[in-house]
Amino acid sequence: MTKTKVALLGAGFIADIHIESYHRFVPDAEVVAVFTRKPERAETFAKKHGIAKWFGDLDKAINDSGCDVVDICLPNFLHHRAVLTAARAGKHVIIEKPLAMNLEEADEMIAACASANRKLMYAEELCFAPKYERVRKLVNEGAVGKIFQMRQCEKHSGPHSDWFYNVDQSGGGALMDMGCHGIAWFRWMLGGDPRVVSVYAHMQGGLIHEKRTRAEVNSLCIVEFEGGAIGVAENSWSKHGGMDDRVEVYGTGGVVYADLFVGNSALTYSEKGYGYAMEKAGSTKGWTFTIFEEAFNQGYPQELKHFIECVRADQQPLVTGADGRAVLEILNAAYQSARTGQKVPLPFRLKVKKPIDLWLG
Amino acid sequence: MTKTKVALLGAGFIADIHIESYHRFVPDAEVVAVFTRKPERAETFAKKHGIAKWFGDLDKAINDSGCDVVDICLPNFLHHRAVLTAARAGKHVIIEKPLAMNLEEADEMIAACASANRKLMYAEELCFAPKYERVRKLVNEGAVGKIFQMRQCEKHSGPHSDWFYNVDQSGGGALMDMGCHGIAWFRWMLGGDPRVVSVYAHMQGGLIHEKRTRAEVNSLCIVEFEGGAIGVAENSWSKHGGMDDRVEVYGTGGVVYADLFVGNSALTYSEKGYGYAMEKAGSTKGWTFTIFEEAFNQGYPQELKHFIECVRADQQPLVTGADGRAVLEILNAAYQSARTGQKVPLPFRLKVKKPIDLWLG
Amino acid sequence: MTKTKVALLGAGFIADIHIESYHRFVPDAEVVAVFTRKPERAETFAKKHGIAKWFGDLDKAINDSGCDVVDICLPNFLHHRAVLTAARAGKHVIIEKPLAMNLEEADEMIAACASANRKLMYAEELCFAPKYERVRKLVNEGAVGKIFQMRQCEKHSGPHSDWFYNVDQSGGGALMDMGCHGIAWFRWMLGGDPRVVSVYAHMQGGLIHEKRTRAEVNSLCIVEFEGGAIGVAENSWSKHGGMDDRVEVYGTGGVVYADLFVGNSALTYSEKGYGYAMEKAGSTKGWTFTIFEEAFNQGYPQELKHFIECVRADQQPLVTGADGRAVLEILNAAYQSARTGQKVPLPFRLKVKKPIDLWLG
Amino acid sequence: MTKTKVALLGAGFIADIHIESYHRFVPDAEVVAVFTRKPERAETFAKKHGIAKWFGDLDKAINDSGCDVVDICLPNFLHHRAVLTAARAGKHVIIEKPLAMNLEEADEMIAACASANRKLMYAEELCFAPKYERVRKLVNEGAVGKIFQMRQCEKHSGPHSDWFYNVDQSGGGALMDMGCHGIAWFRWMLGGDPRVVSVYAHMQGGLIHEKRTRAEVNSLCIVEFEGGAIGVAENSWSKHGGMDDRVEVYGTGGVVYADLFVGNSALTYSEKGYGYAMEKAGSTKGWTFTIFEEAFNQGYPQELKHFIECVRADQQPLVTGADGRAVLEILNAAYQSARTGQKVPLPFRLKVKKPIDLWLG
Repeated sequence: MTKTKVALLGAGFIADIHIESYHRFVPDAEVVAVFTRKPERAETFAKKHGIAKWFGDLDKAINDSGCDVVDICLPNFLHHRAVLTAARAGKHVIIEKPLAMNLEEADEMIAACASANRKLMYAEELCFAPKYERVRKLVNEGAVGKIFQMRQCEKHSGPHSDWFYNVDQSGGGALMDMGCHGIAWFRWMLGGDPRVVSVYAHMQGGLIHEKRTRAEVNSLCIVEFEGGAIGVAENSWSKHGGMDDRVEVYGTGGVVYADLFVGNSALTYSEKGYGYAMEKAGSTKGWTFTIFEEAFNQGYPQELKHFIECVRADQQPLVTGADGRAVLEILNAAYQSARTGQKVPLPFRLKVKKPIDLWLG
Repeated sequence: MTKTKVALLGAGFIADIHIESYHRFVPDAEVVAVFTRKPERAETFAKKHGIAKWFGDLDKAINDSGCDVVDICLPNFLHHRAVLTAARAGKHVIIEKPLAMNLEEADEMIAACASANRKLMYAEELCFAPKYERVRKLVNEGAVGKIFQMRQCEKHSGPHSDWFYNVDQSGGGALMDMGCHGIAWFRWMLGGDPRVVSVYAHMQGGLIHEKRTRAEVNSLCIVEFEGGAIGVAENSWSKHGGMDDRVEVYGTGGVVYADLFVGNSALTYSEKGYGYAMEKAGSTKGWTFTIFEEAFNQGYPQELKHFIECVRADQQPLVTGADGRAVLEILNAAYQSARTGQKVPLPFRLKVKKPIDLWLG
Repeated sequence: MTKTKVALLGAGFIADIHIESYHRFVPDAEVVAVFTRKPERAETFAKKHGIAKWFGDLDKAINDSGCDVVDICLPNFLHHRAVLTAARAGKHVIIEKPLAMNLEEADEMIAACASANRKLMYAEELCFAPKYERVRKLVNEGAVGKIFQMRQCEKHSGPHSDWFYNVDQSGGGALMDMGCHGIAWFRWMLGGDPRVVSVYAHMQGGLIHEKRTRAEVNSLCIVEFEGGAIGVAENSWSKHGGMDDRVEVYGTGGVVYADLFVGNSALTYSEKGYGYAMEKAGSTKGWTFTIFEEAFNQGYPQELKHFIECVRADQQPLVTGADGRAVLEILNAAYQSARTGQKVPLPFRLKVKKPIDLWLG
Repeated sequence: MTKTKVALLGAGFIADIHIESYHRFVPDAEVVAVFTRKPERAETFAKKHGIAKWFGDLDKAINDSGCDVVDICLPNFLHHRAVLTAARAGKHVIIEKPLAMNLEEADEMIAACASANRKLMYAEELCFAPKYERVRKLVNEGAVGKIFQMRQCEKHSGPHSDWFYNVDQSGGGALMDMGCHGIAWFRWMLGGDPRVVSVYAHMQGGLIHEKRTRAEVNSLCIVEFEGGAIGVAENSWSKHGGMDDRVEVYGTGGVVYADLFVGNSALTYSEKGYGYAMEKAGSTKGWTFTIFEEAFNQGYPQELKHFIECVRADQQPLVTGADGRAVLEILNAAYQSARTGQKVPLPFRLKVKKPIDLWLG
């Protein structure tokens, strides 16, 4: 049986994780092309990873690579154009978070894929992270009774690429970048599409990135769901010491705590240091928490494998563009709330070019 | 490209893990047959796992199943016969620990595969457990300097199947069953085939299995390597609360601690309990350590995938019958030491039907 | 030198901790009398703990016991009367949290002690808990740079005594009972008397105590301080599995995590169970986190010793009625916010009989 | 009531801990004098800690200080002389581990105190460490059934003072220095005076202190008790990253793990570092485990308080010279075993000037 051909759009941090995931864990997929805006970077990436073709032109990468699937690992502001191009070309799409810069873009992207009869998967890896999926299974077994509170944290010292700090390209800071994970995960834990009653958020700018960005670099967001459960997303670009990704689930019959980095690591003390401890860990001298199978533990291979299987079996992915849109709506409400200091009820109807405008004004 | 056909011998605890591993992580393999001594059990297992053929006769399973590879998950006393039959039939062999009941059997098994020009992989999953492999990589990078002490523990409340407790079928107790992992792992950490200077062991019988077995149910074994490093294997069939598998590596430049179960788990409190927490965990009410991807975290899929790749590419597996034999020699010395209260130097030359005879006398 | 004579008002859960703390760690104090509303209970408590006198009448306990100091471990609604009586009688006062039912009471209590020239210590033990004090020392040394976020959780499955559930006697639920700790600790960490800009809170009623109380049984409160730092207090009476008390401190130069219960415990697995694991832990079968020196680790002896020293040396306690009042003001704002869904700015000027009225309406 | 007057012999690392313990936790004691071999050091120590008298002469410190009690924190080779002098002067004695350089010294010391009718307490702080005492209480409640294995580790990167490395002054290395704790604790856990059947030990020299000492710098010692339980003491002067002190207790009905340092710490990440994390922790940049109340958590104040109470109430201390002698006998057997590679049965009858001679030959 032939492999499903994938064009990878992007060659940054997340594209590295995707290519590793395809190669090691998704035997039915073949990455046939890579695009990035700097052609020489595309070539380097392609040669390093054994990809046959590379492109510096987005349209050509989609149209001329012979791909079945487009995997979008581009900066946020390019998401809309890439999906529309892919849909027009009849390609299935899997797209990294967040879905789009605004709800209008999101709606167009979803509509374009629907009318082209192509799949649009929203690549929320936390819905596939095996430890968190174990937690979800527990909860669904009734282990902790009825959920009344969840917490999801994702915190580190700030992204790797410059575009994240440019709000015109990213649309927002730590909440847009990382809070989308927590928000998506709350929805996933509550069955996939729970009704959201209100959103509250508090944001802080400056801190350790004062000279680099106007975006929020620390945030807390409370999503209130129908039935009363709340999800608390805490996100930071100002937390030193490496990546932190953890959850807490409180129910009427118990509680679960899980943690993807420190909680899976080997504990190392090294006088001289060594190569790499975990994402954004900094120095490896002294005590470090050494993570293993970082991509696997975050759910990337499982997510990509699921999408390739959906394409091949013509099934609907578990997480779709509609989920990405729902997350984006909550993000919008959060930025609005951070400005007003009030709970913002959903649905959110204000039109805005990018979420952070609602906070920065 | 056609798949490599595997006949699975055994349908117990470990066979379950192997079949899960093949199905989820080894796409180039196809399990075409299963054998177990009770035909109806073989049929049940086959149907449950979608295996085309089942056998209650070992020779037929090997000869008539059309397999390329025999995967031996049988009680210890059947290892010798199964390997010899497989080698004669021209099959590649992967075999669960321990390799054999005694060194003479081991030598015959290795020779049989060699003369048939077939591969014989010794399935030591700890050499593939991703967290421990991360530790090995660190150490090889120089993170902890020169190793002078290692500790490996594997402890639980006792095996699932009756044959483990019958020393005529198992050859020994907790050390034979679980210490083989630690011993293999020490060798692996020291480059694969370090010279062993001496072995010391202390064993305890009775405890929580007094009426069930004459085997040691708790043991401590110190392996002294050339150059002075020691490995301390602690193994128990009398430790309550679920599986414990952990390592410590002490070097002149640092230290690493890692843990496959508690250290990878979600922490759960459940009033009502739930389905399953981890291997041999008992009740799931109250606090439990909930493990995820248990097979993956122990290295089973990686080990099987490696073997299938070796078969397909005609390469030597990283861990072979010679390693299994070396472990068995150390086990022999350990049982002898437990009787005499003295360090036993290697090579070990006493002939014995099964290791535990050296202790029980 | 003579000992400082203490009259202990109250004979419940917290009085037990105080008496243990005096006896083991405060040699300069002597508890000479105990009061509780049920005389026979007072007598039992007195005899158990070797206290010379017992009273079923509050005024007599204060006036006729020969005490120098009154230690108030009474239900919240009795705080005001007890302090006024003590001040009039010329006694120094140490009082358990929360200070009072409302700000008017608080003001009168503070004024009464001031005009009587007696000390009024607000017994916030977290300001004396040795692990948290270690954290504060670190922070003051600059270990984590400038604080931008703190989190303090205190969660368990609900209080021991009925009066907590009766909002007329308690004034509020989980936030009033436990959030006062987090709020006091945020202030303490920021130098003692930082200006509060706003307060936001979300509260949930019902859950596992639906039939027992109208009070909030789960809450989250965000206190925003001048300069931008926030403190997030999470409090619950609906969290199973024993007491949880933990802090996180995020600064521009690092982070600290500390935990008074699980993080100080021995990890135990017991087939049969045993006497006691930790506060509100429930069953001791299976896995439990076994705490030691529970009172010491929470700071009770240190707090009481500090107060007795202040009395003897005529010095001002580190935490006073003014701090208790400031906490109560924040609590008021939190209940108001939970009703309105908006940040509430301070100072808080609404008059209310008890904080929870602001939420329940 | 007058205070019990203590002469502190020694002004090094452990004397610092004792003086802190007396001052903060033992109000009935008054340290009236300090001796150390360098008079100017004695003066500095005395002035720093508010001690009235200081001595550079051992006999004078004992005879002329007006003390009731001598607290011996001297290098091992001075223990014998100090105790004999104290006994002759009619002083009660508390002495740091190990009791003496050899059994003959130990016998004389015990006899001298007995004939002077003075108390001789062996200061094994692990018998008073509150977390370990919690473990012992659990075990005595039957929480883990009958003990069959214990492990006690004490490991760091080597002592602070030069005399430890000089075997003529110390008598031995890591085992003598730290293994005495584990051995004493095993006896304590088994009721105080269990019969020892045999001792086995493995020792390593060199490692990170190759140029500094002939002593063992890493060791493992197995003590086998009547009834079959074993205690495994692991001790190191070559383990980087700060102090490690932990226990494991395996019983037929459960298991307990406890840890005095990492297990009680706050977890800190600091970009710039800070003052102090824990004993021998090295750098405080990056991740560190920050311990609090280090002396209290190791049991020093409790131990000293117990001794002062015994002196004042004329009661026998819980741990005496006889216990110190029993530990020393086991240490002797361990060094002998490390040489011969055999279990050494007790009682141990070989005469030797210092334990390490049995290993070095």
